[in-house]
Amino acid sequence: MDIYEESRQLHKRLGGKLEIIAKYDIKDQHDLAMVYTPGVAQVCRDIAEDESKAYELTIKRNTVAIVSDGSAVLGLGNIGAKGAIPVMEGKAMLFKAYADIDAFPICVSTQNSFEIINLVKNISPVFAGVNLEDISAPRCFEIEQSLQDIGIPVFHDDQHGTAIVLLAAVLNACKLTGKSLTDLKIVISGAGAAGTAIAETLLCIGHDPKICESVKEILVCDSKGIISETRADIAENQTKLKLAKITNRSASMGSLSDAMQEADVFIGVSKGNLVQPEMVKSMNARPVILAMANPTPEIMPDVAKEAGAFIVGTGRSDFPNQVNNVLAFPGIFRGAIDARAKRITRKMKIEAAYALAGCVENPTVDEILPSPLDKSVAKKIAKAVQNAYVE
Amino acid sequence: MDIYEESRQLHKRLGGKLEIIAKYDIKDQHDLAMVYTPGVAQVCRDIAEDESKAYELTIKRNTVAIVSDGSAVLGLGNIGAKGAIPVMEGKAMLFKAYADIDAFPICVSTQNSFEIINLVKNISPVFAGVNLEDISAPRCFEIEQSLQDIGIPVFHDDQHGTAIVLLAAVLNACKLTGKSLTDLKIVISGAGAAGTAIAETLLCIGHDPKICESVKEILVCDSKGIISETRADIAENQTKLKLAKITNRSASMGSLSDAMQEADVFIGVSKGNLVQPEMVKSMNARPVILAMANPTPEIMPDVAKEAGAFIVGTGRSDFPNQVNNVLAFPGIFRGAIDARAKRITRKMKIEAAYALAGCVENPTVDEILPSPLDKSVAKKIAKAVQNAYVE
Repeated sequence: MDIYEESRQLHKRLGGKLEIIAKYDIKDQHDLAMVYTPGVAQVCRDIAEDESKAYELTIKRNTVAIVSDGSAVLGLGNIGAKGAIPVMEGKAMLFKAYADIDAFPICVSTQNSFEIINLVKNISPVFAGVNLEDISAPRCFEIEQSLQDIGIPVFHDDQHGTAIVLLAAVLNACKLTGKSLTDLKIVISGAGAAGTAIAETLLCIGHDPKICESVKEILVCDSKGIISETRADIAENQTKLKLAKITNRSASMGSLSDAMQEADVFIGVSKGNLVQPEMVKSMNARPVILAMANPTPEIMPDVAKEAGAFIVGTGRSDFPNQVNNVLAFPGIFRGAIDARAKRITRKMKIEAAYALAGCVENPTVDEILPSPLDKSVAKKIAKAVQNAYVE
Repeated sequence: MDIYEESRQLHKRLGGKLEIIAKYDIKDQHDLAMVYTPGVAQVCRDIAEDESKAYELTIKRNTVAIVSDGSAVLGLGNIGAKGAIPVMEGKAMLFKAYADIDAFPICVSTQNSFEIINLVKNISPVFAGVNLEDISAPRCFEIEQSLQDIGIPVFHDDQHGTAIVLLAAVLNACKLTGKSLTDLKIVISGAGAAGTAIAETLLCIGHDPKICESVKEILVCDSKGIISETRADIAENQTKLKLAKITNRSASMGSLSDAMQEADVFIGVSKGNLVQPEMVKSMNARPVILAMANPTPEIMPDVAKEAGAFIVGTGRSDFPNQVNNVLAFPGIFRGAIDARAKRITRKMKIEAAYALAGCVENPTVDEILPSPLDKSVAKKIAKAVQNAYVE
């Protein structure tokens, strides 16, 4: 039985991976009167008088909504709200296991950005934070942006979670290559939610976000090649136009293969088998390959290594250096909730990446990131994120 | 320390009365691969191909949304979404304790009916049912009505839950008074959500909803007296106009006091101390008083008894015959979910009331309803409700 059939059988047996339980047992009339009427009226009045007390007296203290419209689920694409539920349940399990956060899946049947924005605003009273998940680009940008002022952190994990883990990987890779971050030429294959967020993150990698210390060059490639302002089709796409403006300082043109010449780092958030050995060979010394396409990476680790790659990471658990969002989002939300942050700032994200990199005391080419099973990581990130907000 | 202060302290200590836990422990990479990527992709594909599988493979199987806009919370009125959370959490505890249903509070910050309708539709993929709660009249009628065709049961507990428990109380009261249901004159004080639903329910009390066997006369009173088509102010209020058309066959006019003359049953869902002893004395022999105003009933039980009441019920736990919705809603949802019903039909509601009445084998004047702590009640109602849908 392969992992897919095993997973199906497990899901059939469980009939839902989450359970909502009471933290207090109703044994008698008195208990009933305390948790429900009439006693609960006092708690309602307390909150009606001072809304911030919801954080003290209700599940708002520790509850996150995982919101998806099912438009970009895993590698499956637009499979709709119901198809997305198993992923969101899995995510909720990770929130609980890694950060003791109660997370609940909100899978919505609309894919209209305005409706989703309005819906998230309207359900926000119960939640301490919102994790947007598996919402397709460019709608995810608009939705996340529009929700930054609702008073609780709203974080699109496919964008920032991925970007933070990748930044941590690059930080530790530099310790091994001996290269300086600000000297790096980085090629990103994929201009969707993740690729865009990674590019934006790499533009501002120092501890002081006001200075916006950046890597030397970022080239983002989509299926048509390097994204640049000179490409005729770019003007029509707001997201890619923005990418073109903030990346590609050298005004490069050409294919992914052209982009990779003399690059130091390749980051793949695109499709399997896009990268050939010759492309790795054309990179600078000690090339770093982070090929995250799932289940088949942009280049298989053994092929990349044979072509001279110094460090290889993938999204898979069966190779070294697994880039997995679970390394970031639990700690980020834990820290933001503990700080009672109203949003997750750029500073919080950068410090999360540095804290994550710091979780590996002595990085090696086969260990630039901690294991996704290491539950101590979230605590360290949470602390850094909480401190970053207080500052 | 009174119950209110005790409740406050308990809520502070708990910091939220619910917890969302995983039904499966992630111990290693293999577990992670089964509950999350890559294994979960298979489950997503299964559901994308056949949406009904969400009932088998996800929390949709057993999860109910408790939706409130906080516009009519307990006796507190319009205290808003955050103020309502403690009540909805308490309700979720009852769902779990009495029917093993996982219920989650959705407290919305909008009080616009159209937005609420749209929101509930949009979040419905994750849920097996929706319990509307503490939404003010007349908006609650419009909202519930508009949601009857979304494919899962949507049930406004303040309306139908209350009506079902009251019908059960009246059914058992008749066994003691020796009166026939169809001979009863019933006065309802209160023309809000509960009063309206009670009146509608009493118009159709037989096992065959097509025949619509009714009590003999229903008079509904609001603060201005008996609702009748002849009252000038009634034409402006759609809900009351409808009530006037379906009740008051005798075209009575006058005050609550006038209404109660020669009545057999008084049902109060209004305000404390509205009913005077003389009004009870003016009722027919063996009068039944169900005075549900909280915390002070329309008439206190001892006063009613002294004035000749044969049976007295209230909403309170410190007097006999407590009319409490927890006697109905857990079993109704359990039955509807087990039947995978698309809506809760009139037949299901009526059978729930008969099943509830049947839970008391030998009714007495001090026991026309089972105790709200009796958890066997929900199972019996669930069975009746499930059978009523299959029919």
